[in-house]
Amino acid sequence: MTDLRKTVETFWATAEARDWDAFAETLAEDVVYTLPQTRERISGRERFVEFNREYPGDWHLRIERIIAEPGQVVSWTLFTVGLEEMYAISFFTGDENGRISAMTDFWPEPYEPPAGRDHLTERY
Amino acid sequence: MTDLRKTVETFWATAEARDWDAFAETLAEDVVYTLPQTRERISGRERFVEFNREYPGDWHLRIERIIAEPGQVVSWTLFTVGLEEMYAISFFTGDENGRISAMTDFWPEPYEPPAGRDHLTERY
Repeated sequence: MTDLRKTVETFWATAEARDWDAFAETLAEDVVYTLPQTRERISGRERFVEFNREYPGDWHLRIERIIAEPGQVVSWTLFTVGLEEMYAISFFTGDENGRISAMTDFWPEPYEPPAGRDHLTERY
Repeated sequence: MTDLRKTVETFWATAEARDWDAFAETLAEDVVYTLPQTRERISGRERFVEFNREYPGDWHLRIERIIAEPGQVVSWTLFTVGLEEMYAISFFTGDENGRISAMTDFWPEPYEPPAGRDHLTERY
């Protein structure tokens, strides 16, 4: 049984390395991947590996933060594609073997601050 | 010294209750609030309480998930304003008294799925 935090670190390291065999080993066979923003869902290891393998662009990632409990982990990662940068927030749950059984991803995009609060905020 | 998970639960419960005195007690005096999507930052307890107190709309919230380590916590919350729903993902760090010293918020919005992956995904 592997610690889920370690599994998640391996998941990201093998994605960055395009080592899809090692990537697949971090996943439960019936893993479910959910994207609430588009209401898309991918079921099963094979499809989910394929989704990542086919994902377009020369993307690279770096882990910004991980918070882990025994059965659930969140990661905050920074993705770069050329000059473009994006954050991803990913919630993972694990099975009894320490593999990833569910992953739910959020991809927050930049937006303009609403009016009426610049007496409290500064921009950085 | 309070557990940071408890502090975060109190933070959200008192925000929902508009109990701004109790809300302020969850915060370190020099708390820093950061919104990476707008590149806004708010420094100090007084301003941050004001920001929340002034936030427009009859918003309500529900905690969907919390993952906690001793010094850092993430919460995934569902906000509703009338019929509109939004997720917020919030990363907290605590000081030595278990108060919130930093909070970084993400507000991911719905978007249309990119073309070319519907052979792998289903919509829900």
